[in-house]
Amino acid sequence: MSTSTKAEIIGILGGMGPAATADFYAKLVAITPGSSDQDHLRTVIWSDPTIPDRTEALLGGGPDPTPWLLDGSRVLREAGATVIAIPCNTAHAFVPRIADRVGLPIVHMIGEVARHLSELTPRIHTAGLLATTGTIRAGLYQEWLDRLGIRLVLPDASSQDREVMTAVRAVKAGARDDSTTALLARAAHRLAEQGAQAVIAGCTEIPLGLPTDAVDVPLVDPALVLARALVRRATTTGGAG
Amino acid sequence: MSTSTKAEIIGILGGMGPAATADFYAKLVAITPGSSDQDHLRTVIWSDPTIPDRTEALLGGGPDPTPWLLDGSRVLREAGATVIAIPCNTAHAFVPRIADRVGLPIVHMIGEVARHLSELTPRIHTAGLLATTGTIRAGLYQEWLDRLGIRLVLPDASSQDREVMTAVRAVKAGARDDSTTALLARAAHRLAEQGAQAVIAGCTEIPLGLPTDAVDVPLVDPALVLARALVRRATTTGGAG
Repeated sequence: MSTSTKAEIIGILGGMGPAATADFYAKLVAITPGSSDQDHLRTVIWSDPTIPDRTEALLGGGPDPTPWLLDGSRVLREAGATVIAIPCNTAHAFVPRIADRVGLPIVHMIGEVARHLSELTPRIHTAGLLATTGTIRAGLYQEWLDRLGIRLVLPDASSQDREVMTAVRAVKAGARDDSTTALLARAAHRLAEQGAQAVIAGCTEIPLGLPTDAVDVPLVDPALVLARALVRRATTTGGAG
Repeated sequence: MSTSTKAEIIGILGGMGPAATADFYAKLVAITPGSSDQDHLRTVIWSDPTIPDRTEALLGGGPDPTPWLLDGSRVLREAGATVIAIPCNTAHAFVPRIADRVGLPIVHMIGEVARHLSELTPRIHTAGLLATTGTIRAGLYQEWLDRLGIRLVLPDASSQDREVMTAVRAVKAGARDDSTTALLARAAHRLAEQGAQAVIAGCTEIPLGLPTDAVDVPLVDPALVLARALVRRATTTGGAG
Protein backbone atom coordinates (compact mmCIF):
# COMPACT_ATOMS: atom_id res chain seq x y z
CA MET A 1 0.00 0.00 0.00
CA SER A 2 1.20 3.52 -0.71
CA THR A 3 2.56 5.86 1.91
CA SER A 4 -0.40 8.17 1.25
CA THR A 5 -2.60 5.61 2.99
CA LYS A 6 -0.61 6.05 6.13
CA ALA A 7 -1.35 9.77 6.34
CA GLU A 8 -4.85 8.97 7.53
CA ILE A 9 -5.27 8.35 11.24
CA ILE A 10 -8.62 6.73 11.98
CA GLY A 11 -10.33 8.03 15.13
CA ILE A 12 -12.88 5.67 16.62
CA LEU A 13 -15.37 7.16 19.05
CA GLY A 14 -16.37 3.99 20.84
CA GLY A 15 -17.49 2.30 24.01
CA MET A 16 -21.13 2.18 22.90
CA GLY A 17 -20.83 -0.67 23.77
CA PRO A 18 -17.24 -1.73 24.33
CA ALA A 19 -17.69 -5.21 22.79
CA ALA A 20 -19.04 -3.62 19.63
CA THR A 21 -16.00 -1.30 19.55
CA ALA A 22 -13.60 -4.24 19.86
CA ASP A 23 -15.53 -6.05 17.13
CA PHE A 24 -15.47 -2.99 14.88
CA TYR A 25 -11.72 -2.57 15.22
CA ALA A 26 -11.20 -6.28 14.51
CA LYS A 27 -13.28 -5.90 11.33
CA LEU A 28 -11.33 -2.81 10.27
CA VAL A 29 -8.05 -4.69 10.69
CA ALA A 30 -9.38 -7.81 8.95
CA ILE A 31 -10.51 -5.98 5.80
CA THR A 32 -7.44 -3.74 5.48
CA PRO A 33 -5.36 -5.11 2.63
CA GLY A 34 -1.73 -5.87 3.36
CA SER A 35 0.46 -8.58 4.70
CA SER A 36 2.53 -6.95 7.46
CA ASP A 37 1.74 -4.75 10.46
CA GLN A 38 3.13 -1.76 8.63
CA ASP A 39 0.45 -1.97 5.90
CA HIS A 40 -2.27 -1.16 8.43
CA LEU A 41 -3.85 2.18 9.32
CA ARG A 42 -2.87 4.10 12.41
CA THR A 43 -5.90 4.18 14.64
CA VAL A 44 -6.80 5.86 17.89
CA ILE A 45 -9.77 4.58 19.84
CA TRP A 46 -11.54 6.40 22.64
CA SER A 47 -13.77 3.81 24.24
CA ASP A 48 -15.89 5.42 26.92
CA PRO A 49 -18.52 3.01 28.22
CA THR A 50 -19.66 5.66 30.71
CA ILE A 51 -21.31 7.66 27.89
CA PRO A 52 -24.96 7.83 28.96
CA ASP A 53 -27.29 5.36 27.26
CA ARG A 54 -28.28 6.73 23.84
CA THR A 55 -31.65 4.99 23.68
CA GLU A 56 -32.64 6.32 27.11
CA ALA A 57 -31.68 9.86 26.10
CA LEU A 58 -33.72 9.63 22.89
CA LEU A 59 -36.74 8.26 24.69
CA GLY A 60 -36.60 11.24 27.03
CA GLY A 61 -35.55 9.54 30.23
CA GLY A 62 -31.79 9.89 30.39
CA PRO A 63 -29.01 12.48 30.26
CA ASP A 64 -27.89 13.84 26.92
CA PRO A 65 -24.67 12.06 25.80
CA THR A 66 -23.60 15.02 23.63
CA PRO A 67 -20.97 16.40 26.07
CA TRP A 68 -19.36 12.93 26.34
CA LEU A 69 -19.28 12.60 22.56
CA LEU A 70 -17.66 16.02 22.23
CA ASP A 71 -15.08 15.15 24.90
CA GLY A 72 -14.22 11.91 23.13
CA SER A 73 -13.94 13.70 19.79
CA ARG A 74 -11.53 16.17 21.35
CA VAL A 75 -9.34 13.31 22.63
CA LEU A 76 -9.28 11.81 19.13
CA ARG A 77 -8.48 15.14 17.48
CA GLU A 78 -5.67 15.88 19.93
CA ALA A 79 -4.27 12.40 19.32
CA GLY A 80 -3.96 13.29 15.65
CA ALA A 81 -7.04 11.61 14.16
CA THR A 82 -7.90 12.87 10.67
CA VAL A 83 -11.37 11.33 10.49
CA ILE A 84 -13.94 10.08 13.00
CA ALA A 85 -15.96 6.88 12.88
CA ILE A 86 -18.68 6.10 15.43
CA PRO A 87 -19.45 2.38 15.54
CA CYS A 88 -22.84 2.87 17.24
CA ASN A 89 -26.03 3.34 15.27
CA THR A 90 -28.03 5.04 17.99
CA ALA A 91 -25.26 7.57 18.67
CA HIS A 92 -25.74 8.82 15.12
CA ALA A 93 -28.89 10.60 16.35
CA PHE A 94 -26.46 12.98 18.08
CA VAL A 95 -24.20 13.55 15.07
CA PRO A 96 -26.03 16.74 14.01
CA ARG A 97 -25.30 18.16 17.50
CA ILE A 98 -21.55 17.46 17.28
CA ALA A 99 -20.68 17.53 13.56
CA ASP A 100 -19.90 21.25 13.41
CA ARG A 101 -17.91 21.20 16.63
CA VAL A 102 -15.48 18.30 16.25
CA GLY A 103 -13.31 19.88 13.56
CA LEU A 104 -12.92 16.58 11.72
CA PRO A 105 -14.96 14.79 9.09
CA ILE A 106 -17.26 12.06 10.40
CA VAL A 107 -17.81 9.06 8.14
CA HIS A 108 -21.55 8.58 8.69
CA MET A 109 -22.31 4.90 9.25
CA ILE A 110 -26.01 5.15 8.43
CA GLY A 111 -25.38 7.17 5.28
CA GLU A 112 -22.86 4.54 4.19
CA VAL A 113 -25.36 1.72 4.81
CA ALA A 114 -28.04 3.54 2.80
CA ARG A 115 -25.59 3.98 -0.07
CA HIS A 116 -24.54 0.33 0.14
CA LEU A 117 -28.20 -0.81 -0.04
CA SER A 118 -28.93 1.48 -2.99
CA GLU A 119 -26.00 -0.05 -4.89
CA LEU A 120 -26.99 -3.70 -4.42
CA THR A 121 -27.79 -5.71 -7.55
CA PRO A 122 -30.43 -6.73 -8.23
CA ARG A 123 -31.82 -3.47 -6.96
CA ILE A 124 -33.88 -3.79 -3.78
CA HIS A 125 -37.01 -1.79 -2.95
CA THR A 126 -37.60 -2.85 0.68
CA ALA A 127 -35.18 -3.26 3.60
CA GLY A 128 -35.88 -4.40 7.15
CA LEU A 129 -34.32 -2.92 10.26
CA LEU A 130 -33.32 -4.52 13.54
CA ALA A 131 -32.19 -1.69 15.81
CA THR A 132 -32.64 -0.20 19.24
CA THR A 133 -35.92 1.56 19.97
CA GLY A 134 -33.87 4.77 20.18
CA THR A 135 -32.52 4.38 16.64
CA ILE A 136 -35.99 3.60 15.32
CA ARG A 137 -37.70 6.52 17.10
CA ALA A 138 -34.98 8.89 15.90
CA GLY A 139 -35.86 7.84 12.33
CA LEU A 140 -32.20 7.58 11.32
CA TYR A 141 -32.44 4.83 8.71
CA GLN A 142 -35.90 5.97 7.62
CA GLU A 143 -34.59 9.38 6.63
CA TRP A 144 -31.56 8.10 4.70
CA LEU A 145 -33.44 5.30 2.91
CA ASP A 146 -36.38 7.56 1.98
CA ARG A 147 -34.01 9.76 0.03
CA LEU A 148 -32.84 6.76 -1.97
CA GLY A 149 -36.33 5.39 -2.60
CA ILE A 150 -35.98 2.31 -0.40
CA ARG A 151 -38.96 1.38 1.79
CA LEU A 152 -38.14 0.47 5.38
CA VAL A 153 -40.05 -2.19 7.34
CA LEU A 154 -39.80 -2.43 11.12
CA PRO A 155 -40.69 -4.99 13.80
CA ASP A 156 -44.07 -4.44 15.45
CA ALA A 157 -44.02 -3.04 19.00
CA SER A 158 -44.13 -6.46 20.62
CA SER A 159 -41.29 -7.94 18.53
CA GLN A 160 -39.24 -4.76 19.06
CA ASP A 161 -39.61 -4.97 22.80
CA ARG A 162 -39.61 -8.71 23.50
CA GLU A 163 -37.23 -9.87 20.79
CA VAL A 164 -34.90 -7.12 19.61
CA MET A 165 -34.31 -5.14 22.81
CA THR A 166 -34.12 -8.28 24.94
CA ALA A 167 -31.42 -9.63 22.63
CA VAL A 168 -29.47 -6.34 22.52
CA ARG A 169 -29.40 -6.23 26.32
CA ALA A 170 -28.29 -9.87 26.47
CA VAL A 171 -25.35 -9.21 24.12
CA LYS A 172 -24.35 -6.10 26.11
CA ALA A 173 -24.39 -8.28 29.25
CA GLY A 174 -22.01 -10.73 27.58
CA ALA A 175 -24.64 -13.41 26.91
CA ARG A 176 -24.47 -14.54 23.31
CA ASP A 177 -26.21 -17.88 23.34
CA ASP A 178 -28.63 -19.80 21.16
CA SER A 179 -31.69 -18.20 22.74
CA THR A 180 -30.38 -14.70 21.87
CA THR A 181 -29.80 -15.82 18.30
CA ALA A 182 -33.29 -17.34 18.16
CA LEU A 183 -34.90 -14.05 19.28
CA LEU A 184 -33.10 -12.06 16.60
CA ALA A 185 -33.63 -14.68 13.90
CA ARG A 186 -37.36 -14.69 14.63
CA ALA A 187 -37.54 -10.87 14.39
CA ALA A 188 -35.54 -10.94 11.12
CA HIS A 189 -37.81 -13.63 9.71
CA ARG A 190 -40.88 -11.47 10.38
CA LEU A 191 -39.25 -8.58 8.48
CA ALA A 192 -38.59 -10.85 5.49
CA GLU A 193 -42.26 -11.89 5.59
CA GLN A 194 -43.15 -8.18 5.36
CA GLY A 195 -41.16 -7.96 2.13
CA ALA A 196 -37.67 -7.05 3.33
CA GLN A 197 -35.12 -8.17 0.71
CA ALA A 198 -32.27 -7.38 3.07
CA VAL A 199 -32.13 -6.84 6.82
CA ILE A 200 -29.98 -4.16 8.42
CA ALA A 201 -28.37 -5.35 11.66
CA GLY A 202 -28.77 -1.75 12.81
CA CYS A 203 -27.31 -1.95 16.29
CA THR A 204 -23.66 -2.88 16.64
CA GLU A 205 -24.60 -5.60 19.16
CA ILE A 206 -26.90 -7.41 16.73
CA PRO A 207 -24.31 -8.99 14.39
CA LEU A 208 -22.61 -10.33 17.54
CA GLY A 209 -25.79 -12.27 18.36
CA LEU A 210 -27.06 -13.07 14.87
CA PRO A 211 -24.93 -15.07 12.44
CA THR A 212 -25.67 -14.28 8.78
CA ASP A 213 -26.72 -17.89 8.13
CA ALA A 214 -29.54 -17.57 10.69
CA VAL A 215 -31.43 -15.23 8.32
CA ASP A 216 -32.94 -16.12 4.90
CA VAL A 217 -32.21 -12.73 3.30
CA PRO A 218 -28.88 -10.86 3.19
CA LEU A 219 -27.95 -9.35 6.56
CA VAL A 220 -26.16 -6.01 6.30
CA ASP A 221 -23.65 -5.29 9.06
CA PRO A 222 -23.25 -1.49 9.35
CA ALA A 223 -19.92 -1.93 11.20
CA LEU A 224 -18.48 -3.77 8.22
CA VAL A 225 -19.92 -1.21 5.78
CA LEU A 226 -18.34 1.58 7.87
CA ALA A 227 -14.98 -0.24 8.04
CA ARG A 228 -14.99 -0.65 4.24
CA ALA A 229 -15.82 3.05 3.79
CA LEU A 230 -12.87 4.02 6.02
CA VAL A 231 -10.42 1.79 4.14
CA ARG A 232 -11.71 3.10 0.79
CA ARG A 233 -11.34 6.69 2.00
CA ALA A 234 -7.83 6.13 3.35
CA THR A 235 -6.75 4.42 0.14
CA THR A 236 -8.26 6.87 -2.33
CA THR A 237 -7.86 10.27 -0.68
CA GLY A 238 -4.59 9.66 1.07
CA GLY A 239 -6.10 11.14 4.20
CA ALA A 240 -6.07 14.64 5.57
CA GLY A 241 -2.83 14.42 7.56
CA MET B 1 -19.02 -2.26 40.28
CA SER B 2 -18.00 0.75 42.36
CA THR B 3 -17.43 4.22 40.98
CA SER B 4 -13.79 3.94 42.05
CA THR B 5 -13.29 1.43 39.25
CA LYS B 6 -14.21 4.06 36.75
CA ALA B 7 -11.40 6.39 37.85
CA GLU B 8 -8.93 4.18 36.01
CA ILE B 9 -8.49 4.86 32.31
CA ILE B 10 -6.68 2.00 30.58
CA GLY B 11 -4.13 3.08 27.97
CA ILE B 12 -3.32 0.45 25.39
CA LEU B 13 -0.14 0.95 23.39
CA GLY B 14 -1.00 -1.23 20.43
CA GLY B 15 -0.69 -1.92 16.75
CA MET B 16 1.99 -4.59 17.26
CA GLY B 17 0.19 -6.10 15.41
CA PRO B 18 -3.22 -4.53 14.99
CA ALA B 19 -5.13 -7.85 15.03
CA ALA B 20 -3.52 -8.70 18.36
CA THR B 21 -4.57 -5.28 19.69
CA ALA B 22 -8.19 -5.85 18.62
CA ASP B 23 -8.07 -9.30 20.19
CA PHE B 24 -6.60 -7.92 23.41
CA TYR B 25 -9.30 -5.27 23.74
CA ALA B 26 -12.01 -7.88 23.07
CA LYS B 27 -10.53 -10.02 25.87
CA LEU B 28 -10.40 -7.06 28.25
CA VAL B 29 -14.07 -6.31 27.58
CA ALA B 30 -15.08 -9.97 27.84
CA ILE B 31 -13.50 -10.50 31.27
CA THR B 32 -14.67 -7.21 32.81
CA PRO B 33 -17.49 -8.00 35.19
CA GLY B 34 -20.73 -6.12 34.69
CA SER B 35 -23.90 -6.27 32.71
CA SER B 36 -24.24 -2.86 31.06
CA ASP B 37 -21.91 -0.67 29.03
CA GLN B 38 -21.49 1.63 32.01
CA ASP B 39 -19.83 -1.12 34.10
CA HIS B 40 -16.86 -1.20 31.72
CA LEU B 41 -13.52 0.59 31.94
CA ARG B 42 -12.78 3.69 29.95
CA THR B 43 -10.02 2.78 27.54
CA VAL B 44 -7.88 4.66 25.08
CA ILE B 45 -6.03 2.71 22.42
CA TRP B 46 -3.20 4.01 20.29
CA SER B 47 -2.74 1.45 17.57
CA ASP B 48 0.24 2.34 15.44
CA PRO B 49 1.08 -0.44 13.01
CA THR B 50 3.88 1.70 11.58
CA ILE B 51 6.02 1.10 14.69
CA PRO B 52 9.17 -0.54 13.29
CA ASP B 53 9.33 -4.32 13.63
CA ARG B 54 10.48 -5.21 17.15
CA THR B 55 12.13 -8.50 16.22
CA GLU B 56 14.16 -6.86 13.43
CA ALA B 57 15.35 -4.14 15.81
CA LEU B 58 16.42 -6.70 18.41
CA LEU B 59 18.25 -8.81 15.87
CA GLY B 60 20.20 -5.72 14.85
CA GLY B 61 18.79 -5.09 11.41
CA GLY B 62 16.01 -2.58 11.87
CA PRO B 63 15.30 0.88 13.30
CA ASP B 64 14.78 1.27 17.05
CA PRO B 65 11.02 1.47 17.81
CA THR B 66 11.66 3.40 21.05
CA PRO B 67 10.67 6.85 19.65
CA TRP B 68 7.38 5.45 18.32
CA LEU B 69 6.63 3.83 21.68
CA LEU B 70 7.32 7.11 23.47
CA ASP B 71 5.08 9.02 21.03
CA GLY B 72 2.27 6.55 21.55
CA SER B 73 2.68 6.75 25.32
CA ARG B 74 2.42 10.53 25.14
CA VAL B 75 -0.85 10.25 23.16
CA LEU B 76 -2.23 7.91 25.82
CA ARG B 77 -1.12 10.14 28.68
CA GLU B 78 -2.61 13.26 27.08
CA ALA B 79 -5.86 11.36 26.53
CA GLY B 80 -6.02 10.81 30.27
CA ALA B 81 -4.77 7.24 30.61
CA THR B 82 -3.78 6.32 34.16
CA VAL B 83 -1.96 3.10 33.32
CA ILE B 84 -0.34 1.62 30.22
CA ALA B 85 -0.64 -1.90 28.87
CA ILE B 86 1.38 -3.12 25.90
CA PRO B 87 -0.18 -6.20 24.29
CA CYS B 88 3.03 -7.21 22.48
CA ASN B 89 5.58 -9.50 24.06
CA THR B 90 8.54 -8.45 21.93
CA ALA B 91 7.91 -4.76 22.60
CA HIS B 92 8.58 -5.47 26.29
CA ALA B 93 12.28 -5.61 25.41
CA PHE B 94 12.00 -1.83 25.03
CA VAL B 95 10.13 -1.20 28.28
CA PRO B 96 13.35 -0.39 30.21
CA ARG B 97 14.06 2.35 27.65
CA ILE B 98 10.64 4.00 28.06
CA ALA B 99 9.50 3.18 31.60
CA ASP B 100 11.06 6.25 33.22
CA ARG B 101 9.85 8.59 30.50
CA VAL B 102 6.16 7.80 30.09
CA GLY B 103 5.02 9.23 33.41
CA LEU B 104 2.53 6.39 33.94
CA PRO B 105 2.75 2.93 35.44
CA ILE B 106 3.14 0.10 32.91
CA VAL B 107 1.50 -3.20 33.81
CA HIS B 108 4.26 -5.57 32.64
CA MET B 109 2.78 -8.43 30.64
CA ILE B 110 5.75 -10.73 31.01
CA GLY B 111 6.04 -10.10 34.74
CA GLU B 112 2.34 -10.91 35.10
CA VAL B 113 2.74 -14.17 33.15
CA ALA B 114 5.68 -15.20 35.33
CA ARG B 115 3.63 -14.49 38.45
CA HIS B 116 0.67 -16.41 37.03
CA LEU B 117 2.88 -19.46 36.29
CA SER B 118 4.42 -19.35 39.77
CA GLU B 119 0.94 -19.41 41.32
CA LEU B 120 -0.38 -22.44 39.40
CA THR B 121 -1.34 -25.51 41.42
CA PRO B 122 0.08 -28.04 41.31
CA ARG B 123 3.29 -26.05 41.20
CA ILE B 124 5.14 -26.32 37.87
CA HIS B 125 8.93 -26.45 37.47
CA THR B 126 9.23 -26.20 33.66
CA ALA B 127 7.44 -23.98 31.13
CA GLY B 128 7.80 -23.88 27.37
CA LEU B 129 7.82 -20.75 25.25
CA LEU B 130 6.51 -20.08 21.77
CA ALA B 131 7.58 -16.55 20.89
CA THR B 132 9.27 -14.47 18.23
CA THR B 133 12.99 -14.87 17.80
CA GLY B 134 13.30 -11.30 19.07
CA THR B 135 11.54 -12.09 22.35
CA ILE B 136 13.67 -15.20 22.83
CA ARG B 137 16.99 -13.46 22.06
CA ALA B 138 16.08 -10.61 24.40
CA GLY B 139 15.68 -13.19 27.16
CA LEU B 140 12.49 -11.61 28.46
CA TYR B 141 10.70 -14.67 29.80
CA GLN B 142 14.00 -16.31 30.77
CA GLU B 143 14.84 -13.46 33.13
CA TRP B 144 11.42 -13.31 34.83
CA LEU B 145 11.02 -17.08 35.18
CA ASP B 146 14.58 -17.57 36.49
CA ARG B 147 13.75 -15.31 39.42
CA LEU B 148 10.78 -17.50 40.28
CA GLY B 149 12.67 -20.78 39.92
CA ILE B 150 10.86 -21.97 36.79
CA ARG B 151 12.97 -23.58 34.04
CA LEU B 152 12.24 -22.40 30.50
CA VAL B 153 12.45 -24.69 27.48
CA LEU B 154 12.58 -23.32 23.94
CA PRO B 155 12.12 -24.66 20.40
CA ASP B 156 15.37 -25.66 18.67
CA ALA B 157 16.61 -23.31 15.95
CA SER B 158 14.89 -25.20 13.17
CA SER B 159 11.49 -25.37 14.88
CA GLN B 160 11.80 -21.69 15.86
CA ASP B 161 12.45 -20.66 12.30
CA ARG B 162 10.34 -23.06 10.27
CA GLU B 163 7.40 -23.50 12.61
CA VAL B 164 7.02 -20.59 15.03
CA MET B 165 8.13 -17.63 12.91
CA THR B 166 6.40 -18.99 9.79
CA ALA B 167 3.14 -19.21 11.76
CA VAL B 168 3.53 -15.74 13.34
CA ARG B 169 4.04 -14.20 9.90
CA ALA B 170 1.02 -16.09 8.54
CA VAL B 171 -1.23 -14.74 11.32
CA LYS B 172 0.07 -11.21 10.78
CA ALA B 173 -0.77 -11.60 7.08
CA GLY B 174 -4.34 -12.57 7.99
CA ALA B 175 -3.91 -16.29 7.26
CA ARG B 176 -5.21 -18.34 10.17
CA ASP B 177 -5.78 -21.74 8.66
CA ASP B 178 -5.27 -25.36 9.65
CA SER B 179 -1.68 -25.43 8.40
CA THR B 180 -0.78 -22.48 10.68
CA THR B 181 -2.36 -24.29 13.62
CA ALA B 182 -0.49 -27.48 12.72
CA LEU B 183 2.88 -25.67 12.72
CA LEU B 184 2.27 -24.18 16.17
CA ALA B 185 0.79 -27.38 17.60
CA ARG B 186 3.86 -29.32 16.45
CA ALA B 187 6.22 -26.78 18.07
CA ALA B 188 4.16 -26.88 21.31
CA HIS B 189 4.20 -30.68 21.31
CA ARG B 190 8.01 -30.68 21.10
CA LEU B 191 8.16 -28.36 24.14
CA ALA B 192 5.91 -30.72 26.13
CA GLU B 193 8.25 -33.58 25.16
CA GLN B 194 11.11 -31.55 26.65
CA GLY B 195 9.23 -31.42 29.96
CA ALA B 196 7.14 -28.26 29.65
CA GLN B 197 4.12 -28.52 31.97
CA ALA B 198 2.61 -25.39 30.45
CA VAL B 199 3.31 -23.53 27.23
CA ILE B 200 3.39 -19.75 27.03
CA ALA B 201 1.83 -18.44 23.82
CA GLY B 202 4.44 -15.69 24.06
CA CYS B 203 3.62 -13.66 20.99
CA THR B 204 0.19 -12.02 20.78
CA GLU B 205 -0.35 -13.58 17.32
CA ILE B 206 0.11 -17.15 18.60
CA PRO B 207 -3.20 -17.61 20.47
CA LEU B 208 -4.93 -16.38 17.30
CA GLY B 209 -3.46 -19.35 15.41
CA LEU B 210 -3.35 -21.98 18.15
CA PRO B 211 -6.56 -23.06 19.91
CA THR B 212 -5.98 -24.30 23.47
CA ASP B 213 -7.37 -27.72 22.60
CA ALA B 214 -4.60 -28.22 20.00
CA VAL B 215 -2.03 -28.55 22.81
CA ASP B 216 -1.76 -31.36 25.42
CA VAL B 217 -0.57 -29.08 28.26
CA PRO B 218 -2.13 -25.81 29.49
CA LEU B 219 -1.54 -22.95 27.07
CA VAL B 220 -1.01 -19.61 28.79
CA ASP B 221 -2.24 -16.58 26.84
CA PRO B 222 -0.27 -13.52 28.05
CA ALA B 223 -2.94 -11.17 26.62
CA LEU B 224 -5.55 -12.75 28.84
CA VAL B 225 -3.21 -12.67 31.86
CA LEU B 226 -2.54 -8.98 31.19
CA ALA B 227 -6.26 -8.22 30.79
CA ARG B 228 -6.98 -9.93 34.12
CA ALA B 229 -4.20 -7.94 35.81
CA LEU B 230 -5.69 -4.68 34.52
CA VAL B 231 -9.19 -5.52 35.73
CA ARG B 232 -7.82 -6.60 39.12
CA ARG B 233 -5.83 -3.36 39.40
CA ALA B 234 -8.79 -1.18 38.41
CA THR B 235 -11.06 -2.95 40.84
CA THR B 236 -8.74 -3.01 43.84
CA THR B 237 -6.84 0.27 43.64
CA GLY B 238 -9.60 2.42 42.20
CA GLY B 239 -7.09 3.77 39.73
CA ALA B 240 -4.94 6.84 39.77
CA GLY B 241 -7.48 9.30 38.31
